[in-house]
Amino acid sequence: MKSIITGTGSHIPKVVKKNTDFLAEDFYTEKNESIPSSNEVIIEKFKAITGIEERRYLEPEFQNSDAGAIAAKIAIEDANINPEEIDQIIYAHNFGDIRHGDSQSDMLPSLASRVKHLLRIKNPNCVAYDVIFGCPGWLQGLIQADNFIQAGVAKKCLIIGGETLSRVVDPHDRDSMIYADGVGACILEKGNNETKGILSHAAQSFTYDEANYLFFGESNKVIPNINTRYIKMYGRKIYEFALNNVPNAMKQALDKSGVPIAKIKKILIHQANEKMDDAIIKRFYRLYKTGVPENIMPMSIQKLGNSSVATVPTLLDLILKNNLDDHQINKGDAIILASVGAGMHINAVVYQF
Amino acid sequence: MKSIITGTGSHIPKVVKKNTDFLAEDFYTEKNESIPSSNEVIIEKFKAITGIEERRYLEPEFQNSDAGAIAAKIAIEDANINPEEIDQIIYAHNFGDIRHGDSQSDMLPSLASRVKHLLRIKNPNCVAYDVIFGCPGWLQGLIQADNFIQAGVAKKCLIIGGETLSRVVDPHDRDSMIYADGVGACILEKGNNETKGILSHAAQSFTYDEANYLFFGESNKVIPNINTRYIKMYGRKIYEFALNNVPNAMKQALDKSGVPIAKIKKILIHQANEKMDDAIIKRFYRLYKTGVPENIMPMSIQKLGNSSVATVPTLLDLILKNNLDDHQINKGDAIILASVGAGMHINAVVYQF
Repeated sequence: MKSIITGTGSHIPKVVKKNTDFLAEDFYTEKNESIPSSNEVIIEKFKAITGIEERRYLEPEFQNSDAGAIAAKIAIEDANINPEEIDQIIYAHNFGDIRHGDSQSDMLPSLASRVKHLLRIKNPNCVAYDVIFGCPGWLQGLIQADNFIQAGVAKKCLIIGGETLSRVVDPHDRDSMIYADGVGACILEKGNNETKGILSHAAQSFTYDEANYLFFGESNKVIPNINTRYIKMYGRKIYEFALNNVPNAMKQALDKSGVPIAKIKKILIHQANEKMDDAIIKRFYRLYKTGVPENIMPMSIQKLGNSSVATVPTLLDLILKNNLDDHQINKGDAIILASVGAGMHINAVVYQF
Repeated sequence: MKSIITGTGSHIPKVVKKNTDFLAEDFYTEKNESIPSSNEVIIEKFKAITGIEERRYLEPEFQNSDAGAIAAKIAIEDANINPEEIDQIIYAHNFGDIRHGDSQSDMLPSLASRVKHLLRIKNPNCVAYDVIFGCPGWLQGLIQADNFIQAGVAKKCLIIGGETLSRVVDPHDRDSMIYADGVGACILEKGNNETKGILSHAAQSFTYDEANYLFFGESNKVIPNINTRYIKMYGRKIYEFALNNVPNAMKQALDKSGVPIAKIKKILIHQANEKMDDAIIKRFYRLYKTGVPENIMPMSIQKLGNSSVATVPTLLDLILKNNLDDHQINKGDAIILASVGAGMHINAVVYQF
């Protein structure tokens, strides 16, 4: 019996941060040099590459796990299950809870424990833990939950992916415009047949040369006596890495599933960068010597930015609730979920509705 | 075929911090009041309850994952396996990498990715991720690895538990004397029979009232304009909680294993507090209406303090390498590993050598 997603939920933060909100920022290069171009030009170029027009920041009164509990509650209601029946709560993130205006990560207790507490779940046999696996963390949580369900260790799992990247961005780094906040969640349960649900998956970690393509580093602007660190990346290296490796991982999962490429109706890929995602999909279809079908790749990055672990579950929730124009998933559709990020980790899941 | 531990390793940090090193500290209560007793009296009382005489702090030039790589390398050599054959690297911690003198947690990339990088492992199919589950995180990693091995998802796993609590302690809190640094690791593999290895396990998360028994909070000494947070705990509540719940979880695991209580040769329990551990073991044996056998519970807390996720794997490594006086584990011995900590989480594993 395959594992099936019986409910989804998300929390789209209410604070809208537009590209024009960055016009007054003081950007520097990674070599700590002031950037000669005007911010208008920087932003225009940024938008052309990433596709991002605006992004969401978490409400200041919330931390990551507060939003996680909101998304989890919606997923539980959507699945119509008794929360006391959940066997595992898996929370994927990379920075813990960070208070608005603070720089310390807090995961004491784990964010999964906080969500279980906020949901008022009593059952002590519901085990709650966090997984750290870069941006692909939520999808990895889904893969782990599937393994546990298939092994008979768990019957119902709640998997949450939540991040508040707005609280770890360097305001003097152009890349800060990429990052966003968000939370998505789902309930995964043992289904009642062998044809619907998670058909296959693939997961990889590239660390030999790639471990520090995304890292925690100091501000691009030299500020004496301040050593606060922020999310940093080697964008060009990540771009090339993703193009070279994500399509292969997707192919590995798809070939394992037995689903022919022509049957894939949607590909939900981590919303990292529109140009990069376009290029990944092209390379993926090229592996099957076929063109990219129309409307195969739903995107939310234009309005929601890159919210790390939250992009894929949020996108799935938006589509399943008919909240993303022009994209539907229907009964019988096979889809691919895929992600790539800090680690560097890559994963992919083939799912049959 | 049961999963068996084929190698262990640990890194005992070289910096020795003695109780007398706290004589000059300026301790306050959690209500921010100065403590009238002398530090001599405070330390004497502390030692009587916890058993701690000294503890280890990680070398300033290292971060958690650096020590993790050292312990992992020893475990891999002990297991005599090719590191390229490892399917999963699971790193349990609760504060990420923290630089000496800093207060920011860094897990970008995950500590498991860092270890894989430091070990120069190339195989991309070796998946590396972190687990956050309070002090029982390493044991939970072992349980997860066992599930994956039993499910056929993995054959060889490296499980590391590492923590640098010295970098998150409030110097104005007496409880700071409890905390220590350390790293332990093991290799878990599929064995070749049904009688040796991990026989059973139990894991629980109590979050309804207990989620914040351990938490991240401000200093006991009011310092204007400083909002750095530190590890904090409600010691009395934890003590009562542990006594009421850890013995039951251990019993749950033992009863599942089918091993009679009289056959248990050692119990390796999280080194949180000597008095508490003594009381837990007494209650555990009382559940079987029997007394506590002589020399059943090896302790390292006197010299190593409470290093969170690292206590159990370090203790196991010390015993298996004959580095703990008066304690041996021999072929044929059945033992229990158990832990409790932030979350609040509890787990137990019954292992047959």
